[in-house]
Amino acid sequence: MSRVVKLAVIPGDGIGPEVIAEALKVLDAATAGSDVTLDTTHFSLGAARFLETGDVLTDADLERIKEHDAILLGAVGGVPGDPRLANANIERGLLLKLRFSLDHYVNLRPSVLYPGVASPLAEPGAVDFVVVREGTEGPYVGNGGAIRQGTPHEVANEVSVNTAFGVERVVRHAFAVASARPRKKLTLVHKTNVLVFAGSLWQRTVNAVAAEYPDVAVDYLHVDAATIFLVSNPARFDVIVTDNLFGDILTDLAAAISGGIGLAASGNINPSGQFPSMFEPVHGSAPDIAGKQLADPTAAILSVALLLAHLGLDAAAENVNRAVVADIAARTGEARATAAIGDAIVSTLSID
Amino acid sequence: MSRVVKLAVIPGDGIGPEVIAEALKVLDAATAGSDVTLDTTHFSLGAARFLETGDVLTDADLERIKEHDAILLGAVGGVPGDPRLANANIERGLLLKLRFSLDHYVNLRPSVLYPGVASPLAEPGAVDFVVVREGTEGPYVGNGGAIRQGTPHEVANEVSVNTAFGVERVVRHAFAVASARPRKKLTLVHKTNVLVFAGSLWQRTVNAVAAEYPDVAVDYLHVDAATIFLVSNPARFDVIVTDNLFGDILTDLAAAISGGIGLAASGNINPSGQFPSMFEPVHGSAPDIAGKQLADPTAAILSVALLLAHLGLDAAAENVNRAVVADIAARTGEARATAAIGDAIVSTLSID
Ligand SMILES: CC(C)[C@H](C(=O)O)[C@@H](O)C(=O)O
Ligand SMILES: CC(C)[C@H](C(=O)O)[C@@H](O)C(=O)O
Repeated sequence: MSRVVKLAVIPGDGIGPEVIAEALKVLDAATAGSDVTLDTTHFSLGAARFLETGDVLTDADLERIKEHDAILLGAVGGVPGDPRLANANIERGLLLKLRFSLDHYVNLRPSVLYPGVASPLAEPGAVDFVVVREGTEGPYVGNGGAIRQGTPHEVANEVSVNTAFGVERVVRHAFAVASARPRKKLTLVHKTNVLVFAGSLWQRTVNAVAAEYPDVAVDYLHVDAATIFLVSNPARFDVIVTDNLFGDILTDLAAAISGGIGLAASGNINPSGQFPSMFEPVHGSAPDIAGKQLADPTAAILSVALLLAHLGLDAAAENVNRAVVADIAARTGEARATAAIGDAIVSTLSID
Repeated sequence: MSRVVKLAVIPGDGIGPEVIAEALKVLDAATAGSDVTLDTTHFSLGAARFLETGDVLTDADLERIKEHDAILLGAVGGVPGDPRLANANIERGLLLKLRFSLDHYVNLRPSVLYPGVASPLAEPGAVDFVVVREGTEGPYVGNGGAIRQGTPHEVANEVSVNTAFGVERVVRHAFAVASARPRKKLTLVHKTNVLVFAGSLWQRTVNAVAAEYPDVAVDYLHVDAATIFLVSNPARFDVIVTDNLFGDILTDLAAAISGGIGLAASGNINPSGQFPSMFEPVHGSAPDIAGKQLADPTAAILSVALLLAHLGLDAAAENVNRAVVADIAARTGEARATAAIGDAIVSTLSID
């Protein structure tokens, strides 16, 4: 009984194609011999495509992507400051358009300090938490505007939109995640003392859902205080639930304290299954080192583990995680090519 | 020829009165024998006052405060979760009302890792930068609102307002600060790829003012990337200019990497001099340790140094800074009472 998984692959720009090549190697190896057959379709999207055709993401692209079971994305974005990209806004037009159109309301970003990884912190302690970042609301909605642009009387506004519907579904997901983890602890991060309307909605929602999860211990931190704890005592965190912008900021900081964005994986998840979920490393396209086999594909490979878990292939996901942890622990500090890291991880997969 | 400086003192709640007592000791000692006479008036404001009278900050309070040359504030805020304070919002009604009413558009927050201070970073390098945080606009304006509150159809919005007037004046101030520092480097921090309208205004304003400061090197970081650099390479920063919310987040992180908020001073400055500027430690009221002589008054004392510099008393400011640095360098790790730290710093002031 074989199951076909239709995977849309968006290698993207810069180091994206290199890290995705390794991620696919690992994905193939981890599913080889299983009852899963991968049917992958590559999509050429990103700055390179824009420069060629002028398109960022067409409706037709989006419709074709929607026909897939999941998406694996490398990184998108051209060389910073490239004048030909001045008005492209690949981030909003491609990455955020995918997250919003495919209703990726859970942006899942685990942070683990693996044995053998150097942290910039003197005494990091045990770092093992996951940020559940809201993905379809907040200041990311694109509801800003400006008047009198370019004059001394310009006013530029940005609107953060937060709905009971949107906040509740991600908070519920975060409680489910927390309840399934050994420490069962959930921290709401917001700025309720200043953003009083959005903050009140978040706080009331967490309070309400908490009543259904008596096993989960709940606390609250202002976003500014949360950054302090991330460097002074990251072990205090288990599950963080937070809005789109605070989640963006906290997860880069979380990546930094747990070995850098070269190791940070993420899932943009639509838990209902109505649309395909998308897995991507947290890092960007790093055009300065592209094409040189200098990029670390580990974050992309850990994103494959999140993809496998999302597909219900828990054993394969565990297998990939274990192989990555073993590879990281064996690192000597000597530089390895992107492909060499992928090959090493494939060779440590326990394929049975 | 004697000059009278009218100082409004707001000790506030929790550890506020204790740290302010030490700050005033140092202020008195640093100005003793100079041509400056301090005329201080204490204002009882904060959670304690609210619980007594129901007032947070009356128009009459504000008018009386405006008659002063400067303000020294300890910390305001009651015990978290105190039900009697549920609707008080001391932060918005007092601290932010002062900043907005007194047009404190420059929130100046230096970060220095002093010799002898333990950083949570394994290899902090030389940390010596200043954040120029906008103080009267952005998501702090309080222009949010909610509909259908408490129902499943609630929508809670927050509006970030950014004006050419408001952005230009703080950016000009930041360039002036950068130009007067040896390294002459200015980093704009924003999230221009997502908050495209506000981001565009900030970026265009920095570009325009940069043309008048050819000696200042300018770069740009997204706020998420800035948090990474603050832990991986804080030495890269000299002057950061940023919006109100990003500045709030970055300065707590900056305090954490340079020895903690026990050492972080700040000035809420109205450069035009139309209204009194306000100096305060970055830390909060910490009610859990209040009244026990456990708080470190150093941040409040460093805020006095900022106050003295603002009043043009550069030698006295330098004197206080030097005494604090000496005291910090001599710390043995043994606990000292709040007053003992203040006394030690007073005794190292070189009064001539
Ligand atoms: C590229 C950018 C739009 C994106 C975000 O802000 O979400 C990135 O920083 C991330 O965290 O995935
Ligand atoms: C107390 C709070 C309103 C305040 C802020 O957000 O500005 C504080 O965090 C600060 O940084 O001074």
